[in-house]
Amino acid sequence: MSTLLSGIAASNGIAIAKAYRLIEPELKVEKKSIENVAEESARFKAAVDMSKSELQNIREKAAEDLGEDKAAIFDAHLLVISDPELLGPIEDKIKSENINAEFALKETADMFILMFEQMDNEYMRERAADIRDVTKRLLAHLLGVQIPNPSMIAEEVIVISEDLTPSDTAQLNRQFVKGFTTDIGGRTSHSAIMARSMEIPAVVGTKEATKTIQNGDIVIVDGLNGQVHINPTPEVIKQYEKEAQAYEAQKAEWAKLVNEQTISKDGHHVELVANIGTPKDLVGVINNGGEGVGLYRTEFLYMGREQLPTEEEQFEAYKAVLEGLKGKPVVVRTLDIGGDKELPYLNLPKEMNPFLGYRAIRLCLDQQEIFRTQLRALLRASQYGDLKIMFPMIATLGEFRQAKAILEEEKQQLLAKGVTVAEGIEVGIMVEIPSTAVMADTFAKEVDFFSIGTNDLIQYTMAADRMNERVSYLYQPYNPAILRLVKMVIDAAHKEGKWAGMCGEMAGDETAIPVLLGLGLDEFSMSATSILRARSLISKLSKEEMEALAISVLDLETNEDVQAAVEAAVSKA
Amino acid sequence: MSTLLSGIAASNGIAIAKAYRLIEPELKVEKKSIENVAEESARFKAAVDMSKSELQNIREKAAEDLGEDKAAIFDAHLLVISDPELLGPIEDKIKSENINAEFALKETADMFILMFEQMDNEYMRERAADIRDVTKRLLAHLLGVQIPNPSMIAEEVIVISEDLTPSDTAQLNRQFVKGFTTDIGGRTSHSAIMARSMEIPAVVGTKEATKTIQNGDIVIVDGLNGQVHINPTPEVIKQYEKEAQAYEAQKAEWAKLVNEQTISKDGHHVELVANIGTPKDLVGVINNGGEGVGLYRTEFLYMGREQLPTEEEQFEAYKAVLEGLKGKPVVVRTLDIGGDKELPYLNLPKEMNPFLGYRAIRLCLDQQEIFRTQLRALLRASQYGDLKIMFPMIATLGEFRQAKAILEEEKQQLLAKGVTVAEGIEVGIMVEIPSTAVMADTFAKEVDFFSIGTNDLIQYTMAADRMNERVSYLYQPYNPAILRLVKMVIDAAHKEGKWAGMCGEMAGDETAIPVLLGLGLDEFSMSATSILRARSLISKLSKEEMEALAISVLDLETNEDVQAAVEAAVSKA
Repeated sequence: MSTLLSGIAASNGIAIAKAYRLIEPELKVEKKSIENVAEESARFKAAVDMSKSELQNIREKAAEDLGEDKAAIFDAHLLVISDPELLGPIEDKIKSENINAEFALKETADMFILMFEQMDNEYMRERAADIRDVTKRLLAHLLGVQIPNPSMIAEEVIVISEDLTPSDTAQLNRQFVKGFTTDIGGRTSHSAIMARSMEIPAVVGTKEATKTIQNGDIVIVDGLNGQVHINPTPEVIKQYEKEAQAYEAQKAEWAKLVNEQTISKDGHHVELVANIGTPKDLVGVINNGGEGVGLYRTEFLYMGREQLPTEEEQFEAYKAVLEGLKGKPVVVRTLDIGGDKELPYLNLPKEMNPFLGYRAIRLCLDQQEIFRTQLRALLRASQYGDLKIMFPMIATLGEFRQAKAILEEEKQQLLAKGVTVAEGIEVGIMVEIPSTAVMADTFAKEVDFFSIGTNDLIQYTMAADRMNERVSYLYQPYNPAILRLVKMVIDAAHKEGKWAGMCGEMAGDETAIPVLLGLGLDEFSMSATSILRARSLISKLSKEEMEALAISVLDLETNEDVQAAVEAAVSKA
Repeated sequence: MSTLLSGIAASNGIAIAKAYRLIEPELKVEKKSIENVAEESARFKAAVDMSKSELQNIREKAAEDLGEDKAAIFDAHLLVISDPELLGPIEDKIKSENINAEFALKETADMFILMFEQMDNEYMRERAADIRDVTKRLLAHLLGVQIPNPSMIAEEVIVISEDLTPSDTAQLNRQFVKGFTTDIGGRTSHSAIMARSMEIPAVVGTKEATKTIQNGDIVIVDGLNGQVHINPTPEVIKQYEKEAQAYEAQKAEWAKLVNEQTISKDGHHVELVANIGTPKDLVGVINNGGEGVGLYRTEFLYMGREQLPTEEEQFEAYKAVLEGLKGKPVVVRTLDIGGDKELPYLNLPKEMNPFLGYRAIRLCLDQQEIFRTQLRALLRASQYGDLKIMFPMIATLGEFRQAKAILEEEKQQLLAKGVTVAEGIEVGIMVEIPSTAVMADTFAKEVDFFSIGTNDLIQYTMAADRMNERVSYLYQPYNPAILRLVKMVIDAAHKEGKWAGMCGEMAGDETAIPVLLGLGLDEFSMSATSILRARSLISKLSKEEMEALAISVLDLETNEDVQAAVEAAVSKA
């Protein structure tokens, strides 16, 4: 039967493929008496063997795709699954108590997990997590349940999941994953941002994708209109193939702008740059005609691993990005961890309101060794391109001064050691906290640039968690309150001869772009896949007309009023 | 041995009394074999009898102090402790398994709790909580551990606790509780706000009060300097008795202003009003010369109970406050629940960032029956005094319009039924979300007044949870960003001929008051105990001089710069 789900269009394009459910299965263990002990014991051994060979495959694949470092975690799993101190007691239990392998495994593993978790030694505590992972895999084999493993996908699929965490997405193979759809999330959730950066169509927040879609169903993800078709009729498939072609044709049209500058109808130049997460994203930036990188989110370097990245690892990544851009500007944001992005190995205490908590520059100024290591890696890489350094979550001038002083200290120490550091590295801040927007005039005297982070700025200005669906109606990018703050920041920058950019989702939004052009924004940083469309849009707008529009919308009352006014103005343009 | 703890001065004054630890004891149950079954069984019966008579006492006390409604919960507990279906299996277990009463009780109770919790019926699920409470009480008696019960305090004490929840504080007997000190919390935590409203000295955030102080220790709470002395020497006691006298003398001096208006040195009048939580707080307002109530926090009516308060209960409370104030203005804030204030019976889902979540007006516009019931109670009470209605957490003009339309509907329906409703009730909003401060000019055209809620406004503007100690350095009331927003709000109100008040902690702060006077704030709402001191301070300031000060500090760079500038200006005044 053909079914239709509606959600939020999170990444443009159309994909048609078979469904692949990326969902943790429920592993329910019941205690059962068994009669044939030898058979049960053999069943357990078979599960061990299958898990072991599976782990070896995954390990090889991970080493290939993600590097030896990330593959190491599977070595730890292989050690656990070969450990007689774990396997022995399980087999004994099956024999002496005449119970099923699942229960014997669960009881024994739980005991070891508890034991390791209570140890005072960080290394031993991590072993508890390894045992937990291996137990899950063994149980799945015993119960005949499949554990999905995104890194092993080897045919074209649409991934179906509740939500995609950054580490899930990092494991997706871009060659085979043609699109995805999730139950939860919005346009600014990480899964959506990742989809755009991977240039795959995505529809998020469908509420019931995982309930409705089974493995192997044929699925159309319509990332242009936010729709998901499940087992569509041949007519619908044909129609979508046509739409996909039309979209490709439109993209081909835009593609002609790939080597062009971004110039408004009346000759005003702005810069269109890309947001990236890893050096791998550079291909997309170049293919889409990005004039540089406006936001390099360095936290991905820190995620999905067991300890902090070394200075050397970071240096290599930063160097790769700077070299890849061949002298085009690269704005690197220093570590923005905390909030919804956790690093388990930092052992940070749970917070009641993580979005208002200990994160980003707050954490970096407190745990300075982490910060200083990153700054050294950046300074050392600076000679390979046009590096600009940006501090996230700056709320007060005091924080900026402290961060900049630390950067200066590290620079002096490197120079004293004879290390080459580029001259005149620009140092700027994210403007994503209302206090900083309101005080932009004083900041502008000391920073080299601003980049407005609208995802957080909107969330704090409206006091509404953008991940919380109950208050998502308050995520209002066109609310005049937001536009007034944006104007304050741009005006403050220009008054001091500095530049102002934007790296939140709003910078690539077709309704926001005309207003931002009118307000005088200098740099628009967006998902690479949005760049050509934005370039095409700006080429059709007159900056002078947009200035008049921008001034007039500041006095409107609501988000909807502004949206209507912009649409009216652009349709006339 | 005499010990000294430092914390945050949360409520002025000095108190000396014996310590009373208000701390949940740990009830550790071990399984033990017993030999004398009859003896064990008798021990269990004795615990039942003691718990029963204790519960009867508490029930009577609660009925007297808090009303029959709140006493009803103890009836449910008495039913549980007399239920043969619970007691029978426990006694059987002691006899048949030869185990100790504690273990038999715990196993049996846990089974019942699990059973009730899994039922589909809301009423039955609540029974699980009753069984849990009764089990705790029985275990305490069996283990010889004391469960503290604040409502039974009958001698002068200093309460020692980790933190005080609103429902704890509601149970404290003002006659005997002379002061309190907590491990956690800051100047704007609920425990601190409650202490000021109860007019008892308090020091919060000492980090180790509960670790250091034992029941019966002599404790001095110095709420003026944020210090706690444990078992002080006779000399220290003598010195503090002197300081307490001096403070009383100062208070006597201020008390002369109790019937005066609040007039600056150069003849400008402002209104000093009080924040209250319950009708009981009125005594303090009148004794301290409050010119009205600037913030009546109605959520206390909804807390510490098992279901929503009826319209009638609310009507009685609002009427009592309005009549008690004899025609002086009373600003009632509609329900501000959610965030850190939970109502278990609403069964709201856990949120990742409750401060940025589904709370206050957001919840009221969604669950309109709760909101409409409160509005009807308010409208019916309006004829008994000078009622003003204020909506909390307004972020957009759309929300205000919707809330006001609902109010108007309820008013028309009451009038149609012939109910008397006061004419010209002013309807205003809290300004506590940055977007609303930035858009104050458009709001000012539609609201009757603003009241700036600085506790939240600061937290959102700085993006820092004020309850989170790791980012408490960002709670900066004098940050020029905050002062600029405050100015926007006051200027916008005056431009439309409306008044602007402030009901956050800042309104009673000695460093903020000179700036707020200079910015033209019309109404200062604070803890009743701060009113006379503020009146005395304002009488010594010239508004004209403070205007110049206020303008100059808006261009300063940091919180500390402003603080220094104000202190310099006031010391010259």
